[in-house]
Amino acid sequence: MGIEDIPSTHPRAQSLNMRHALIQGVKDGIVADSGLIAHGRGEAFDYLIGERTNKFAEDAIEAAAALLFLAKKPIISVNGNTAILCPKEMTEFSNSTGIPLEVNLFYRTGSRIENIAKIFHSLGSKYLLGTDERQQVELDGFDSYRRIVDKRGIYQADVVVVPLEDGDRTENLVRMGKKVVTIDLNPLSRTSIAASITVVDNIIRFFPLLQEKYHSLDKERAEQVIDNYDNKVILRKSLETIASLWKEELDKKYSMFHS
Amino acid sequence: MGIEDIPSTHPRAQSLNMRHALIQGVKDGIVADSGLIAHGRGEAFDYLIGERTNKFAEDAIEAAAALLFLAKKPIISVNGNTAILCPKEMTEFSNSTGIPLEVNLFYRTGSRIENIAKIFHSLGSKYLLGTDERQQVELDGFDSYRRIVDKRGIYQADVVVVPLEDGDRTENLVRMGKKVVTIDLNPLSRTSIAASITVVDNIIRFFPLLQEKYHSLDKERAEQVIDNYDNKVILRKSLETIASLWKEELDKKYSMFHS
Repeated sequence: MGIEDIPSTHPRAQSLNMRHALIQGVKDGIVADSGLIAHGRGEAFDYLIGERTNKFAEDAIEAAAALLFLAKKPIISVNGNTAILCPKEMTEFSNSTGIPLEVNLFYRTGSRIENIAKIFHSLGSKYLLGTDERQQVELDGFDSYRRIVDKRGIYQADVVVVPLEDGDRTENLVRMGKKVVTIDLNPLSRTSIAASITVVDNIIRFFPLLQEKYHSLDKERAEQVIDNYDNKVILRKSLETIASLWKEELDKKYSMFHS
Repeated sequence: MGIEDIPSTHPRAQSLNMRHALIQGVKDGIVADSGLIAHGRGEAFDYLIGERTNKFAEDAIEAAAALLFLAKKPIISVNGNTAILCPKEMTEFSNSTGIPLEVNLFYRTGSRIENIAKIFHSLGSKYLLGTDERQQVELDGFDSYRRIVDKRGIYQADVVVVPLEDGDRTENLVRMGKKVVTIDLNPLSRTSIAASITVVDNIIRFFPLLQEKYHSLDKERAEQVIDNYDNKVILRKSLETIASLWKEELDKKYSMFHS
């Protein structure tokens, strides 16, 4: 079956459509080749958490909403994969909260930045940083192009949301004293371990729920959520859930196939 | 760090080099875009089994060697990813055993077949099928181009080795009465569940060990191995191993990061 012929009733339709969109994104100069490999890793881990927002993720998303609610200078980092997978949801969240988005790329080229910015602008994004060369500064301690940041954004931020991230960056940002929220489907990645809040969930499910949680908070409730949050507990729960889903799934598949 | 600058001492050097080679393989018309996503899924699952050949995989590889040893018409399927990841090892095994390789592609184009065949011919591959249109026949029950097979190869084979596979094909081949050996890093994939022998291991570790096991067999020993082999037991062991590695890894990473 060609990828263009996927009926919407196909049990894997959403997953196949995401693949298709990302492959097209490579051809359009938005997604890096290695973004496809990264997406594959994400697919595998999403499968392991049952392709749903589990309780451990919901709790982390609530904490992320609270941290952003209380932050003085929050920022959300954007790359090629996010620009394909959930640009509308990111724009809605950014526009409704005033929290800016910043294009920040590992495989940085001028045309990729431009292509990504175009997507967000066409969706009506009001607060998009990382596209104006005059605002660029470089962070210390980074080997990659990730070091080039916007001085109004990641540079001075106290809270940084880094979806689909490389481990080096998260560790560096934390070392600089910033709080980092990551959305990473692998609960054992360096990013997941280093982050202040780790949302083990698919980014396409993350932003709609973040939006909902954020707008239902007030200052007192947000402080309470942060006080009660322990990322280590959340990561452990994610691992326990994966281990138990894993066994369930095997039993189910076996009985289907060998009946 | 650019992917070209990976020092061989880098702890992820092999993994990063494979990524690099596959991305180049896309540019060279050998690997399908979706092959990169599939590789990413493989990376995630390889990580979960500790990036090594575990006992459950070694047992399955021994059984695969025995099945091939006893087969009347064995065949090994080749695609773009295998042509990049382990063409030398596949050629060595094929040449030393007389078991042919057959190019069989999901995203089939004449130029991809040609580019893949070129790689194997340049390595001295003596038994390469799937490139001669006059030998093509179509199998029933396949929606994809996988249905186009070589009548001297997959068509009449009793044992088919399908590395890095789509689930549809494996199920169909089994339904046709063929024995299928798969090398699949996801022990819960449809392919893994449907196959006669499932090697949960990275293909780059598979062929050297298959070579070694095959050449140490005789008929009596091969029959004994097959008699004692239970794929369901092997899959369960792989799952148990993953679950326990999973917990170990978390404890290790946490103590490193929070010391």
